[in-house]
Amino acid sequence: MVGNSLGERFVVTSFGESHGKCVGSLLDGCPAGLPLSESDIQPDLDLRKPGQSIITTQRKEEDKLEIFSGTFNGFTTGAPICMIIWNKDSDSTPYEKIKNIPRPGHSDYPALLKYGGYSDFRGSGRFSGRLTASYVMAGSVGKKLLKHTLGIETVAYTIEIGGIKSNDISFEIAKKYRYSNDVRCPDLGIAEKMKEAILSSRRSGDSLGGIIECVSIGLPVGLGEPVFSSLESDLSKALFSIPAVKAVEFGSGFTGSRLSGSENNDLFINKDGQIVTITNNSGGILGGLSDGMPLVIRIGFKPAASIAKVQRTLDLNTNTIVDLKVPGRHDPCVVPRAPPVVENLVSFILADHAIKCGFIPNVLKGD
Amino acid sequence: MVGNSLGERFVVTSFGESHGKCVGSLLDGCPAGLPLSESDIQPDLDLRKPGQSIITTQRKEEDKLEIFSGTFNGFTTGAPICMIIWNKDSDSTPYEKIKNIPRPGHSDYPALLKYGGYSDFRGSGRFSGRLTASYVMAGSVGKKLLKHTLGIETVAYTIEIGGIKSNDISFEIAKKYRYSNDVRCPDLGIAEKMKEAILSSRRSGDSLGGIIECVSIGLPVGLGEPVFSSLESDLSKALFSIPAVKAVEFGSGFTGSRLSGSENNDLFINKDGQIVTITNNSGGILGGLSDGMPLVIRIGFKPAASIAKVQRTLDLNTNTIVDLKVPGRHDPCVVPRAPPVVENLVSFILADHAIKCGFIPNVLKGD
Amino acid sequence: MVGNSLGERFVVTSFGESHGKCVGSLLDGCPAGLPLSESDIQPDLDLRKPGQSIITTQRKEEDKLEIFSGTFNGFTTGAPICMIIWNKDSDSTPYEKIKNIPRPGHSDYPALLKYGGYSDFRGSGRFSGRLTASYVMAGSVGKKLLKHTLGIETVAYTIEIGGIKSNDISFEIAKKYRYSNDVRCPDLGIAEKMKEAILSSRRSGDSLGGIIECVSIGLPVGLGEPVFSSLESDLSKALFSIPAVKAVEFGSGFTGSRLSGSENNDLFINKDGQIVTITNNSGGILGGLSDGMPLVIRIGFKPAASIAKVQRTLDLNTNTIVDLKVPGRHDPCVVPRAPPVVENLVSFILADHAIKCGFIPNVLKGD
Amino acid sequence: MVGNSLGERFVVTSFGESHGKCVGSLLDGCPAGLPLSESDIQPDLDLRKPGQSIITTQRKEEDKLEIFSGTFNGFTTGAPICMIIWNKDSDSTPYEKIKNIPRPGHSDYPALLKYGGYSDFRGSGRFSGRLTASYVMAGSVGKKLLKHTLGIETVAYTIEIGGIKSNDISFEIAKKYRYSNDVRCPDLGIAEKMKEAILSSRRSGDSLGGIIECVSIGLPVGLGEPVFSSLESDLSKALFSIPAVKAVEFGSGFTGSRLSGSENNDLFINKDGQIVTITNNSGGILGGLSDGMPLVIRIGFKPAASIAKVQRTLDLNTNTIVDLKVPGRHDPCVVPRAPPVVENLVSFILADHAIKCGFIPNVLKGD
Repeated sequence: MVGNSLGERFVVTSFGESHGKCVGSLLDGCPAGLPLSESDIQPDLDLRKPGQSIITTQRKEEDKLEIFSGTFNGFTTGAPICMIIWNKDSDSTPYEKIKNIPRPGHSDYPALLKYGGYSDFRGSGRFSGRLTASYVMAGSVGKKLLKHTLGIETVAYTIEIGGIKSNDISFEIAKKYRYSNDVRCPDLGIAEKMKEAILSSRRSGDSLGGIIECVSIGLPVGLGEPVFSSLESDLSKALFSIPAVKAVEFGSGFTGSRLSGSENNDLFINKDGQIVTITNNSGGILGGLSDGMPLVIRIGFKPAASIAKVQRTLDLNTNTIVDLKVPGRHDPCVVPRAPPVVENLVSFILADHAIKCGFIPNVLKGD
Repeated sequence: MVGNSLGERFVVTSFGESHGKCVGSLLDGCPAGLPLSESDIQPDLDLRKPGQSIITTQRKEEDKLEIFSGTFNGFTTGAPICMIIWNKDSDSTPYEKIKNIPRPGHSDYPALLKYGGYSDFRGSGRFSGRLTASYVMAGSVGKKLLKHTLGIETVAYTIEIGGIKSNDISFEIAKKYRYSNDVRCPDLGIAEKMKEAILSSRRSGDSLGGIIECVSIGLPVGLGEPVFSSLESDLSKALFSIPAVKAVEFGSGFTGSRLSGSENNDLFINKDGQIVTITNNSGGILGGLSDGMPLVIRIGFKPAASIAKVQRTLDLNTNTIVDLKVPGRHDPCVVPRAPPVVENLVSFILADHAIKCGFIPNVLKGD
Repeated sequence: MVGNSLGERFVVTSFGESHGKCVGSLLDGCPAGLPLSESDIQPDLDLRKPGQSIITTQRKEEDKLEIFSGTFNGFTTGAPICMIIWNKDSDSTPYEKIKNIPRPGHSDYPALLKYGGYSDFRGSGRFSGRLTASYVMAGSVGKKLLKHTLGIETVAYTIEIGGIKSNDISFEIAKKYRYSNDVRCPDLGIAEKMKEAILSSRRSGDSLGGIIECVSIGLPVGLGEPVFSSLESDLSKALFSIPAVKAVEFGSGFTGSRLSGSENNDLFINKDGQIVTITNNSGGILGGLSDGMPLVIRIGFKPAASIAKVQRTLDLNTNTIVDLKVPGRHDPCVVPRAPPVVENLVSFILADHAIKCGFIPNVLKGD
Repeated sequence: MVGNSLGERFVVTSFGESHGKCVGSLLDGCPAGLPLSESDIQPDLDLRKPGQSIITTQRKEEDKLEIFSGTFNGFTTGAPICMIIWNKDSDSTPYEKIKNIPRPGHSDYPALLKYGGYSDFRGSGRFSGRLTASYVMAGSVGKKLLKHTLGIETVAYTIEIGGIKSNDISFEIAKKYRYSNDVRCPDLGIAEKMKEAILSSRRSGDSLGGIIECVSIGLPVGLGEPVFSSLESDLSKALFSIPAVKAVEFGSGFTGSRLSGSENNDLFINKDGQIVTITNNSGGILGGLSDGMPLVIRIGFKPAASIAKVQRTLDLNTNTIVDLKVPGRHDPCVVPRAPPVVENLVSFILADHAIKCGFIPNVLKGD
């Protein structure tokens, strides 16, 4: 497999460019018999699409999904599912001007060298955050599959922006309120402060980063494949495919590195006939396998690289240092648009493992 | 591919068990013409092997490598390289007693359910830290290949144990001193304190975690394959395959999530004819591609789960709660033994990408 | 990877259905810098499309290609290339009637059981010969890539239909005349007889099979990867993915099984500075590797299964034996439409190996 | 994956060389809970090993199997199974002399160029028929797995040598008598003639080829994955990995290419409650999927390339034409040693598909 595919038995190949004709996903390996139509996936795309609030890029795209193959009579057939959204509001003018002036913090420079100048630089091409729409499409099918067969649910939400941290969030609160505000933080008081911080940062021509938390419940025990397809391995591989992600931790993560074993170990108990652990520092993964406790991941996003502030960089045409004020329309903080990407992408990986580990059959029972 | 393989064009399959006959690696895709013998790899295994100091497990293993295939007349042939070390000092008695009493913080419980009781539980079987010897073998070949062809060098070292942090370390200092002390921290004053902390923790029947930093220099621009085989994706996938790793970050990582764009962006300059960035918050990766700057990764390890302190857990035979004092010989902190694992495993992934991206040919020129 | 993908570093995923919205190919791994537009691929699709002559199905499809991604300014970018043709003249009425009456010789019966009734049965869905259009799209890019970089050329042509055999054909004659007639046989006198045989067979409500020969010239020495990706292995895997193919042989093939070693071995000579063999019973492959001689493959197609003659079969609704006269529009012989499928698919596999074996770089030099 | 691996969820990687230390297989993906020890596999290796009769090479090898990992208490654990036989009776002297004089019909010439002189040429290294022992090891586990779970049985046997053909053979006769004679032909009268033909050929310094038939019974309906992992695709890929195989056909194969549709189609009937076809020209595969009828394959082997007769070839040292009398010990016909290779390799592929298609679970029920 080349780099644009992900998964072993539930496999997505992402295609399309930010300013090309479309962005799409081709999903192979979906079991037959899952009820599926555009309306199952569209809500997830809507949560990700640009132009939804004053703190996102003002590019306006409908991101209306079309399914081209793989469904029949309202159900998946077991054949590859091709899904596409069209690009309608792209403006490539700014990119022509800077195609040899790499923006600091961006893929521009290594992409230019790697592809010998042939890559589509308009809107960052394949490196654009817009490509995460293709992750959402495939992941949304995975999410529905997991819900339909195993009752697994996944929620992702903002817990930190520009150093402003939310308080601890329960699964139920996160599920209910994460999309109730522009920054997608279920702690509504903090959400307001985060939004102000983003607006303030943009006013000063700058940008912010932040942290997303993702929790999944209902996992069976035993997802994951030793030694190189541990659940952490495959989830992190997927998550680091999201532009701007620079850090991933599970359970107590880096904090756990500072605890002692007796503090960090999660003790088992039998609670009403179910084996659970009292704490969940493992984040639901032991030995790379799901242990039945909630899966807990935190993902660190760097501040958006495209800022209005003047930065010095190199003009590769002349090999001189120039001042660059990045043109185009950009998110001042990508974090608010990331929760739907994270929760669908995590669902995607869990679906692949649920299939591989025998928890989901090749053909679903009809209802 | 099933879970025990890693890589696309430089592929390792790990095999063996902690208390079985052996631990081994089968490496396919190594270019022909690399000078290679056991003595190239043995030093890396020696740095990882148990029983080297008073702060590691007292299991004594020679870990003497045998190459069974894939070399001829002192060079690699292009054929798969099978490498094995034998298990000679295993003691499985303690594990028989607790095979149905899952240790908190360990793979025991999910492994028991996943494999229906058939998995080799002795010494944690496939889930043992001992399996990282197989990563070292294959990675060591990758490290040599990278050095031989592209001059890439990788060093990993301890920067934190039990909350005790080293000062900043330069590449040259790290390269020189990382293996000069038992905890593998190049900051020698801090190293002493870390060692004391480990000894003190063990005395109290407890364990510690910590953080490893890994730096690679000499990478060409353009390693990595969008979108799902970004360099961060494939490196994190590998690193999360190391038992006890629960967090991975690149460059400024989680800290960068709290910076503004203007603080975190690395500005380009032309330095003596070379394009470099003034800072390196990206950790050498932009858009998932190497940008020519040093690759910087930090890896968080949880405290070792097997501790002497009594812990409450479930006896699955009787479904009752019991007190468990984990038997057997264990590391009070796995971090000191991790640097050779990390630096060889990182080398492995870089070698795979260097081959895939066309920087290393299928046949090396003879010398 | 799931079954709809082919290749390791030049990877196609086929999608679409015979009577769905479209048939498409997603091609990942194409080097950047190849001049490419729809007009490069359309001629190959035109040679395959239905309704071209009186001996093919009368379904009328334009099969007009659209490229949705992966090209920019007339060149490939290194990103995935999504290609689609639309279905416009499908008539699904006949298939509704027989959806539980499996046609003899067809995929109907195992597909019904495998997919639990969810597969798209209209026009045989994913099992239709129409899907070979997706092979042609991807293979056509491979063919252009091979021609552009290495000068490799591939031709396929009919050598036998209904037992009527052509005389031996030289590469030049095949290249020139294979598409000059409806049956795609460069032996023009024989071609006429083959056509009459097909027409006669159709008149009697029956169908015919036949044999295609495929020859490639210009291969470098050393394509193929021991032991399981021998050139024969990967070519046969691809060729047996064409519906109706039931036999594949290389060089002297089954005939060679009846020769002695001294008759079958090809002796080496130095001819004008080039090492060649006097005969070519190996078909250009020794030890699974290309040896520099022309690659020679013969592919056996069974007679088309959908015939007008009444056949007895089972009605799975009633579990009784019924008489079936297969409805719908069908080819009385699929062989005449197969040469473009074979030559593009063979090119696809050669391109994958040429990339893997280092004969084609990741970025092509501009012209 | 690189070329030495085969399978998707039941994956073998072959390693070792003809005259190196060993030949081995690493098998990943075997379900846990299969009773397995060396004695399950040794009989299959014994049927393949050299020196068993006067018509095989006189190299004497015990081929005694050692399992190094992946089993515990007599059962598979779900972990990779490493299996090795040692090389004890190799004589590399003859190969030193001809290392730059490629033998006609052999891999010598392309291998020399492909690997730049680094490949292990002794006894043909990785290209030796001896490597098929690694196929037998892994395939034998697959065969046992299929028998244990689904009752599938596979037999392969010689049906033609040097143009001498056996009569039609029933499954039961083939199962009973195929290993009763040196040529492995269940038609005992013909077997004697085949043996004489081989001896006569060897006396004249020559060699013979032949054809193997392989039949599997008990397959469930629906093995195979459209479109590129059709059962024919994956079986042929595996079979063409056997040295000397140049032709593969399923069911009526090339003969079917000369029949009409009404002759070749297999009509369905309900026979005692089971849906079967009256004939089996499809060889048990429709649309790339198993249809429940016996799987029938025929495999064409070329005559062994290493013959005692003088042949003219090139000396690459001097670039002159020389006379070559191939030194070393060789089989005068490889066909008699091929049945165990074919039947285990076919079982391997069927096991991979049975796992992928959900017919075999990840953990087998204990007995």
